[in-house]
Order: sequence, then structure tokens, then C-alpha cells
Amino acid sequence: MASNVQETTRDKILRTGAEVIHLKGFNHTGLQEILSVAKVPKGSFYNYFRSKEDFGLQVIDYFIGQFFHFSKDILEDTSIPPLERIRKMLDGFKDLFRSTEYTCGCPIGNLAQEMGDLSPAFRERLEDAMNAMVDAYAGILTEAQAVGEISTNLDAKETAHFIVSSWHGALIRMKIVKGLEPLDIHSKFIFDHVLRPCI
Amino acid sequence: MASNVQETTRDKILRTGAEVIHLKGFNHTGLQEILSVAKVPKGSFYNYFRSKEDFGLQVIDYFIGQFFHFSKDILEDTSIPPLERIRKMLDGFKDLFRSTEYTCGCPIGNLAQEMGDLSPAFRERLEDAMNAMVDAYAGILTEAQAVGEISTNLDAKETAHFIVSSWHGALIRMKIVKGLEPLDIHSKFIFDHVLRPCI
Repeated sequence: MASNVQETTRDKILRTGAEVIHLKGFNHTGLQEILSVAKVPKGSFYNYFRSKEDFGLQVIDYFIGQFFHFSKDILEDTSIPPLERIRKMLDGFKDLFRSTEYTCGCPIGNLAQEMGDLSPAFRERLEDAMNAMVDAYAGILTEAQAVGEISTNLDAKETAHFIVSSWHGALIRMKIVKGLEPLDIHSKFIFDHVLRPCI
Repeated sequence: MASNVQETTRDKILRTGAEVIHLKGFNHTGLQEILSVAKVPKGSFYNYFRSKEDFGLQVIDYFIGQFFHFSKDILEDTSIPPLERIRKMLDGFKDLFRSTEYTCGCPIGNLAQEMGDLSPAFRERLEDAMNAMVDAYAGILTEAQAVGEISTNLDAKETAHFIVSSWHGALIRMKIVKGLEPLDIHSKFIFDHVLRPCI
């Protein structure tokens, strides 16, 4: 039982701390604020995390876990044609952002922007997280090529990188205009210009 | 002469403070650090800026001024075909990022990501700054349509938004992989798939 209780406390600190970091960024979120939202004393925090940086690295793992929790069912639903799966996943994220008033964006993209130049440890972990997302898209794009939905002239991995990066950029503008227009423009160009049977 | 001295001090605070903010972000840069790099006392800072937020808003204006200072000659050189001007501008930024070891990225994109949810004043100023960049691209794209370099089926403004947003996303990944590959992928997809005579 003890280990279950410990697991729950750790998860609670991660979940509540991750929410604040998602909105405010890592450096702008103080340890005291993390303890306050998690409602745990400092000693409890250090039972699970060696430092604020160690916490941040585990938050990245938490965020990538959330990404796959959110998208796994769609990504793996082979009853839906590959491109339609990508569209459904992006539409799902649009619904999510509509429900949160166009705030926060992608936590992996945010942390990459904020921490890419400031912490080699964050950089390494964020590259792994980005690659996991890219691999998920690349797998579907390879399926899409196999069934003729998109051109085999496309490099699936490069195309996946472009989809993810341009999505991250669209999310930046979403936070400024507080609307879905940047994400709709992203979908339009990705589906009308890139993911085509002939290029 | 007095006004010249004042102008110089203000510009020095802006330039040196902007450099720190470009690397570390706005919230992670303390007023004391801004004063320290500018080598001015606090009283001098408040001669020019009402608050740290007011300083941040003027830093946005400084950054967009830098963008046009960097790109104006290329943007307005009508001896070069429109698409070639866009390519030269992006190549110029790639050279710049190579020289700075792939750090910092676009300061407008960075601040939009960091401050978009945290400050309505920043959001408004950043939207103006993004629109200024987008209008510059849209103008060239309209020229490119007039000479048949790209399809008139493209909406120049939307296309410009997609180019700028996807560039911002590519810069995020540049900061993680510390190389030009994300920017080269951006160029490849923008020029091979979007900016074409027939779509």
C-alpha cells in the first residue's frame, strides 16, 4: 500500500505542476508554486524529485505520455484510412484548444522554445519527446503511402517533422490571435499541398 | 546634445536587454540583469521605461525593427525575382543562426509563445509585429503571382501566415537539434509544395 500512496503523491505533483508549467513556462514557475498547487510540503517533493530540473525532465515524460494518451486510440484505429486519422487527431486537438480558450499550446514545443538554449538535459529529453511524436506521424504517413493516399516521393520522416514543426508554429500564433485560424491554415496547407497522391 | 545622450542610453538599454531576453525569455530576465548588462542604474532605466512590462513592449518594437533592418534590402530589391528574394532572406537567416550556433530563434515567435497567455498588452503588440512580418511576405507573394512564379489560387496573406508560422516552428526544433536541418526541411516543403506555379 505504501508504494501506491507514494505513487499517487508523485503523480499528483507531476500533474498539477505540469499544468502550471504548461501555462507559464518552466522558469517562470517557482518551486513554491509547484508545492502550493500540489498541496505538498517541500520534503515530500524531494522524496520524488532530486531538483526542480529533475522535476522538469519528468514533466516532459508526463507530457509525452499525455500526448499518446490523447491520440493513441485514433493513431491505432486502422479501420480509419491513414490520412483521415491524422485529420481526426488534429481536429481533436483543435477541440481541446477551443475548450481551453486557445491557451497553452503544445507543452513539448513550449519547453523546446524556452529551454532549448538553456539546458542540455532538457534539450536531450525534448528531442526524444519530439522524435516520439514525429515517429507516430511517420508511421501513419508510411501507411498512407502503402495505400496510395500520398505520394511515395515524400520522405515520411521529413514530412512528419514538417507537420509537427509547422503545427508548433501555428500554436504560437493561436496563443496570440486566440482563435483556431492558425491551426485551420495549417490543416489547409498540409492536406492541400503536402499530403497528396501526386506531387 | 542632451537629447542625443538620452537617445543613446535608451537605445543601449533596449539593445543589451533585448539580447538577454532573446536568449532567456522575458520572465526569466530580471530587471537587475537588464540594468547590469546595460551598465545603467535603476533610476536611469525609469527615465525611459515606466515598468519592466513597458520595457518589454518596446523590446518588441526593437525586435521588429531589427527584422526589417536585416531583411529590408533583400525584400525591396526588385532586380531579384520575388521567390528568389524569399529564398535569399531565409538563407540569410540561416547564415545568421549558423553564426550564433543555432540559438535564440525568432524573438517575436519566442515572446508570442512565452507571453501570449500571460499579458494582453504583449499579445496585442506581438500580433502587430507578426502581421508586419506577414505583410512583408504577402507583398512579395503577390508580386510572385503577378509574374507567374506561383499560382493565383493561393491566398497571399494565408500563405504568408503559413510560411511565417511554420518557420517559427522550425526554429523551435533548430534550438533542440542545434543544426539547420529543420530550417532546410521548411525551405524544401515551402518551395517544393506551396510556392509553385500550378497547385
